[in-house]
Amino acid sequence: MLRAEIIAIGSELLTPHRTDTNSLWLTERLNSVGIEVQLKTVVGDDEAILEESLRDALKRSDVIISTGGLGPTEDDITRKVFARVTGRQLKLDYEVLAGIRERFASRGYQMTPNNERQALILVGGKVLANPNGTAPGIKIDQEGKLIVLLPGPPRENQPMFDDYVMPDLERMSRGVRMASRVLKVTGLGESALDDMIAPIYKEYTNPSTTVLFTDSEIEIHLTGSADTAARAEEIVDELTDKLEEKLGYYLYSTTGESLEEVVGHRLRLKQFTIATAESCTGGLVAERITRVPGSSDYFVGSVVSYTNEVKSRLLDVPEEMIELHGAVSGEVAEAMARGVKMRTGATIGVSVTGTAGPGGGTDAVPVGTVYVGLSDDVVTSNRRLVLPGDRHLVRWRASTAALEMVRRRYLL
Amino acid sequence: MLRAEIIAIGSELLTPHRTDTNSLWLTERLNSVGIEVQLKTVVGDDEAILEESLRDALKRSDVIISTGGLGPTEDDITRKVFARVTGRQLKLDYEVLAGIRERFASRGYQMTPNNERQALILVGGKVLANPNGTAPGIKIDQEGKLIVLLPGPPRENQPMFDDYVMPDLERMSRGVRMASRVLKVTGLGESALDDMIAPIYKEYTNPSTTVLFTDSEIEIHLTGSADTAARAEEIVDELTDKLEEKLGYYLYSTTGESLEEVVGHRLRLKQFTIATAESCTGGLVAERITRVPGSSDYFVGSVVSYTNEVKSRLLDVPEEMIELHGAVSGEVAEAMARGVKMRTGATIGVSVTGTAGPGGGTDAVPVGTVYVGLSDDVVTSNRRLVLPGDRHLVRWRASTAALEMVRRRYLL
Repeated sequence: MLRAEIIAIGSELLTPHRTDTNSLWLTERLNSVGIEVQLKTVVGDDEAILEESLRDALKRSDVIISTGGLGPTEDDITRKVFARVTGRQLKLDYEVLAGIRERFASRGYQMTPNNERQALILVGGKVLANPNGTAPGIKIDQEGKLIVLLPGPPRENQPMFDDYVMPDLERMSRGVRMASRVLKVTGLGESALDDMIAPIYKEYTNPSTTVLFTDSEIEIHLTGSADTAARAEEIVDELTDKLEEKLGYYLYSTTGESLEEVVGHRLRLKQFTIATAESCTGGLVAERITRVPGSSDYFVGSVVSYTNEVKSRLLDVPEEMIELHGAVSGEVAEAMARGVKMRTGATIGVSVTGTAGPGGGTDAVPVGTVYVGLSDDVVTSNRRLVLPGDRHLVRWRASTAALEMVRRRYLL
Repeated sequence: MLRAEIIAIGSELLTPHRTDTNSLWLTERLNSVGIEVQLKTVVGDDEAILEESLRDALKRSDVIISTGGLGPTEDDITRKVFARVTGRQLKLDYEVLAGIRERFASRGYQMTPNNERQALILVGGKVLANPNGTAPGIKIDQEGKLIVLLPGPPRENQPMFDDYVMPDLERMSRGVRMASRVLKVTGLGESALDDMIAPIYKEYTNPSTTVLFTDSEIEIHLTGSADTAARAEEIVDELTDKLEEKLGYYLYSTTGESLEEVVGHRLRLKQFTIATAESCTGGLVAERITRVPGSSDYFVGSVVSYTNEVKSRLLDVPEEMIELHGAVSGEVAEAMARGVKMRTGATIGVSVTGTAGPGGGTDAVPVGTVYVGLSDDVVTSNRRLVLPGDRHLVRWRASTAALEMVRRRYLL
């Protein structure tokens, strides 16, 4: 298996405020042709350290990708150090220079002399055109090893990588092809999930399986390899099918879609419309639903009722009900769902009421207590949850529970 | 200036799904005592590569911090490699072992033999107790250089670092103390801001100034150093005061507070209450306001009106107004703000209506057109914006504009 190494260059990446994220996207692309990333380095504007890192990289890796440090300022040391380590001169590329001049002219700016530096290319290197910025990339074949210098911004380096570097990597990896799939699961705990699926996925070494836990969801990552892309897909499909069968309705996506996208598809298919009534989530359920482009086809609106008065005035929750059962109760959750359905004219009303903390908890209703409610033309129901975590997590998990309640109700 | 290096260990950090974030927090702490981070490395479970990285680090850095790879599984190679490179034996620490046993027993679990490995300590190293997990940390003085091995999870390594490592770093940095401040600005473009403040901050090398641009806000980071913490604070205060005077109401925070927190303070102080009426932001303004603990003191509720029907039914926006001016118009924004104020009984109504895209734009109302409105007992007004960016960014920037409208109205 070929091995790659990624070097991110830039002093801002060594501050407490910024981190390298280019390497995640690059890793995905490298893995897709069976190339493993064995080391990631973040260096600042220190020539000696970059030189040492690059020399080490050349000793142990087949592919070396750097991002950043190609700009016009004095600090941009990438070209200089790569030239020194590979024993190449830097030469002004007049075609590249003309392109940079043109770019400045078309925007009505004067090109300053330090921008010329971006037209310096390592002798023997190939220029990678950058339609989205001034600094071009460079790739070099160094005694059979591939060295690639990319600019820092993702919108510049990603198209460049796909157009000019992926074909080389496919050639180098000599027919190793990978396929990957992300299965998304909700409503199951960590160990409950593992009990269900470990006996299945442990029988496979190809595809490999990784289970990742996020705020309120579980992702199962499958990666298969074969000599053709089609065969790699087949290998991943086989395990996907088995896990899908086992997980049943706990599995909500095998295509990387978010829960709100999946819910949106169901609603659109059934030609239903939805409205939300929210207390502790403060509009988060509505906000998640409307993240999806085109959600206006099925989302009509929402009422966030933080006070009891608004619950009564805008959602017709009877004051006596709130007095008798409390604002955080199944009765109120159902009344809110029914109320927002009636007031907005939506097919479905979904609601959340609860205490997200940190304050406001009582013995009877501790922080984290949440009721989700759903009302449609057939039934009105509610579900009680006690959610762990801080305010942010309780709100997020409550919004997921509300979306999940909708998904489960309209599975078929 | 002392120089540090951070090594993150773990194969999951070399996948497309996870990245090292421990280093950001550690960098903040190291910087606070004047220690610079000059390199960050992410390595997997490869002993040879970790060994090479560690040997390089020992040659060039005064402080070496590793995170991860201290767990009980075969893959956890940190102890082994650090022992080899520092020329030390690994010895079973019976006190640590007893602690791990106790931890398992108190949870009713049987301790498996591989957990014993977590009690292996480098000879001459100091055990760093871990009240939040099983694996203790280790610190070593290696010929005047400080080597620290930390577990991976932040809730385990952060208290440990503050309790056992910071005192050493303070001693090593011999009285260099740093102070930092984050100034948050909104409503100004990149170059307009720089024109305003560059002549001021460029006169200072201490504190140093970095300007960072995020989705819809600008952060100005100031870092000052001196021989005492109090003096470092003074140095930062001086420039903060000058920038504060220059920036005026564009500056909304010098204490790291978010815009929704600042707005919350103003509302609480004035004993005002607020409600939002939202179209394209889908509840995001309400969601941001209610992220703040205790926001129920001033936030009463929200109506998200995605359809014209809901705008009329729940916010009393006249149908004829929508027909005449369009749903995305200043008139409708004002009517929405007035409507939600009246319906909920809040002191202030704030509204957003616009087109977030990607579809739905027209020549007259292109994607990114947003009107924000505000209504209180004195005035009702609106503001038109054309926001750049994708759906996510337009929604975020529109929500910021709404919050900013509230902040500006009640500055005094």
